[in-house]
Amino acid sequence: MNADKYFLEHRKAHLDELCDLLAIPSISALSEHRGDMRTCAQWLQQSLLRLGMTRAEVMETGGHPAVYAEWLGQPGKPTALIYGHYDVQPVDPLDLWETAPFKPTVRDNKLYARGASDDKGQLFMHMKVLEALFRLEGSLPVNVKILFEGEEEVGSTNLARFLKEYQELLKADVVVISDTGLYAPGVPSLTYALRGLAPLEVTVTGAKGDLHSGLFGGSAPNAVHALVELLASLRRPDGGVAVTGFYEQVRNLSDEERATFASLGFDEESYKRELGVAALPGEPGYSPLERLWTRPTLEINGIFGGFQGEGTKTVIPAKAGAKITCRLVPDQDPTRVQDAIEQHLKANCPRGVTLDVKRGDGAPACITPVDHPAIRAALAALAEAYGKEAKFIRGGGSIPVVGLFTSVLNAPSVLMGFGLEDENFHAPNEHFHLENFDLGMRALYSYWHKLSTAF
Amino acid sequence: MNADKYFLEHRKAHLDELCDLLAIPSISALSEHRGDMRTCAQWLQQSLLRLGMTRAEVMETGGHPAVYAEWLGQPGKPTALIYGHYDVQPVDPLDLWETAPFKPTVRDNKLYARGASDDKGQLFMHMKVLEALFRLEGSLPVNVKILFEGEEEVGSTNLARFLKEYQELLKADVVVISDTGLYAPGVPSLTYALRGLAPLEVTVTGAKGDLHSGLFGGSAPNAVHALVELLASLRRPDGGVAVTGFYEQVRNLSDEERATFASLGFDEESYKRELGVAALPGEPGYSPLERLWTRPTLEINGIFGGFQGEGTKTVIPAKAGAKITCRLVPDQDPTRVQDAIEQHLKANCPRGVTLDVKRGDGAPACITPVDHPAIRAALAALAEAYGKEAKFIRGGGSIPVVGLFTSVLNAPSVLMGFGLEDENFHAPNEHFHLENFDLGMRALYSYWHKLSTAF
Repeated sequence: MNADKYFLEHRKAHLDELCDLLAIPSISALSEHRGDMRTCAQWLQQSLLRLGMTRAEVMETGGHPAVYAEWLGQPGKPTALIYGHYDVQPVDPLDLWETAPFKPTVRDNKLYARGASDDKGQLFMHMKVLEALFRLEGSLPVNVKILFEGEEEVGSTNLARFLKEYQELLKADVVVISDTGLYAPGVPSLTYALRGLAPLEVTVTGAKGDLHSGLFGGSAPNAVHALVELLASLRRPDGGVAVTGFYEQVRNLSDEERATFASLGFDEESYKRELGVAALPGEPGYSPLERLWTRPTLEINGIFGGFQGEGTKTVIPAKAGAKITCRLVPDQDPTRVQDAIEQHLKANCPRGVTLDVKRGDGAPACITPVDHPAIRAALAALAEAYGKEAKFIRGGGSIPVVGLFTSVLNAPSVLMGFGLEDENFHAPNEHFHLENFDLGMRALYSYWHKLSTAF
Repeated sequence: MNADKYFLEHRKAHLDELCDLLAIPSISALSEHRGDMRTCAQWLQQSLLRLGMTRAEVMETGGHPAVYAEWLGQPGKPTALIYGHYDVQPVDPLDLWETAPFKPTVRDNKLYARGASDDKGQLFMHMKVLEALFRLEGSLPVNVKILFEGEEEVGSTNLARFLKEYQELLKADVVVISDTGLYAPGVPSLTYALRGLAPLEVTVTGAKGDLHSGLFGGSAPNAVHALVELLASLRRPDGGVAVTGFYEQVRNLSDEERATFASLGFDEESYKRELGVAALPGEPGYSPLERLWTRPTLEINGIFGGFQGEGTKTVIPAKAGAKITCRLVPDQDPTRVQDAIEQHLKANCPRGVTLDVKRGDGAPACITPVDHPAIRAALAALAEAYGKEAKFIRGGGSIPVVGLFTSVLNAPSVLMGFGLEDENFHAPNEHFHLENFDLGMRALYSYWHKLSTAF
């Protein structure tokens, strides 16, 4: 029996089993669900043993447990580490759900439940693909390790320590993560790069205290004015970042990447409608999609200073502050970016005020070269399953665990995710398009074969 | 007996009587003091009748009562309206007072009590001067009307309506107000101009809601960025205001005014120490004092937008706002200034955001020409009492009632105040330097004589 037929025949059984998994309210953020978290981990461990993994354990992390499993029956073949997370976001506001978040329901070929797409649905696909390989072929084409985390939605607090502690156990040639999405419905696509992050907090202080704008206005520094002047200087009028050195380490977009992105047919008009804006300002010389995926940004996330109440208060504010984060791209070093911005702020600080800059924890961007064999194999598997050309895409956000896998395990990540942007992750009525449940499993089935001969 | 001798002989009695007035806790802002407000008004009315005014009444305003009095026994001579306010600020924090706010105490030739300087002490001087004139000369040299308000510290809510209702009753050639201060200790000085006000509120809106800075950063408008760009554009790098037309109606400083201000010996270094700043940024081409008194300003009083909590939130703010007030100088029209700023904001609004501008109630600056006879008389009276050249000064703030007297009564104001900047008005340990209580009364005594022949 071939895989296609197998998945078709077992579809109902698979969905029923997935619904059992989704029915466990594994909300990591709420302490009253601590028991559910462990129940869910044990459910996964039992399933993994049942489907054919030689080892499966619930492992302590200090927080919610992780699940580890392995099958290493292909010495000489590549070893892949599959990462997923079984914890989900809280469900409030509950009254906006059309059906209860932990009573999975299929409507219109979409499975509605908290975690359906993010990420229980996707990690379950991996399990069923491995099961299919065991049943149809008696073994896996590559060595497989599995790490299912229970704290992704609460910042993966214990993951870095866990990865370091079990570095040897988790060692792999490639990490496969199914926690991202397709570019658009019906477009097989593979995320090969994510942006990093460099946070800063700026505080400007003028006089000892707020001053009366009548008695002092005209001859006293205004912290808010100084701050807006400083912040405005960070961006050029054309939309680019004006900080010297900011773009210095930025890896140029290749012609191949540009062509691929252009072929996706990004619809500027519908994007503007979606955001409710009349223009998409940004760095010149790049399309909106290129800016989102391949160019670094500097965004003010918040600003405060002086009087914020109702009406008028004639005060010269003594203090003002702003929070900034930069999204970074390969090969920017977060510390060097923070250095450059701090230097710019110091050099441009207006007279009469003092400046304080605090740095948050940065994270570099992640990229797996598009010619990496594990990436090429994934693209081919996607094309095969979807029956059309698969596209390389990037992501504008950051997935911190990817950086951890790179830095601790020194393994490239393949982000082979099957979600869609409109699937309401973290919101009421989360759902998963079952078309991608079906096609995704076929792609993953084929992927392990292609990976076994890729290196 | 001459006036000097009279005031010396009655000094103790005057101070005792002032202490009685100061002991009444006439806090207009606190409803539990409503009875004290009326007690205080009645105290004043009785004293005014006793000292020789032909009419003295407690008058209803809709809020706390006002006190009106008159003596009109000099037909053909000028009529002056003396304005003062008998209400005081709240006293908290009470534990910072060295002696109780309503137990007046003299220490080091300073009288400590709430209202000692602002403004009960100063309106009381007027009463004792009129009394001295009646006792020593049997009449006043000019016609005198008195209006003591009970709501100055709560925004003179009912004053405009009251002035309009009693326009005929209050009609005068000049309004004399003792609610300002001397330039510095030992410097007889007369405030002949105050700045006005033009408030605006700016709101910038980008996308429908806050956006994820990873998923949208680079191709979506950031309301805070747009706002800081807009606000920074309002001021030139040199400190001047960049709004076209902003300075158009500004009356130039005369050479005489410049010379007078320069002669005051404004101490930039001690001013900087007082504020705790290293520089006094402002419009170029003017001294700090000239900027404070004679140049308009544009100050951001407050700004807000996006995330203001602890830590990092990677959001692209959809909304940001700022509050702005301009201090205006003669002959700027508040509406024209607001027009100019709104036009500037609209013309400079960055792409992708929408702008909303709201206007607050503006007030023009006030100026009484330095060659006005009532002003010249005051300057001469001050010089005589203090025994040294008196100086023309201006104020950087706004006293809304002055504008009301100008617009409703069409009478120029003489701001003959005797407070000092360090006397803690509105703060714990308010006090009044009795040197200026003594010299001020001599100046006022002389003023009424000079005014009687000035016109």
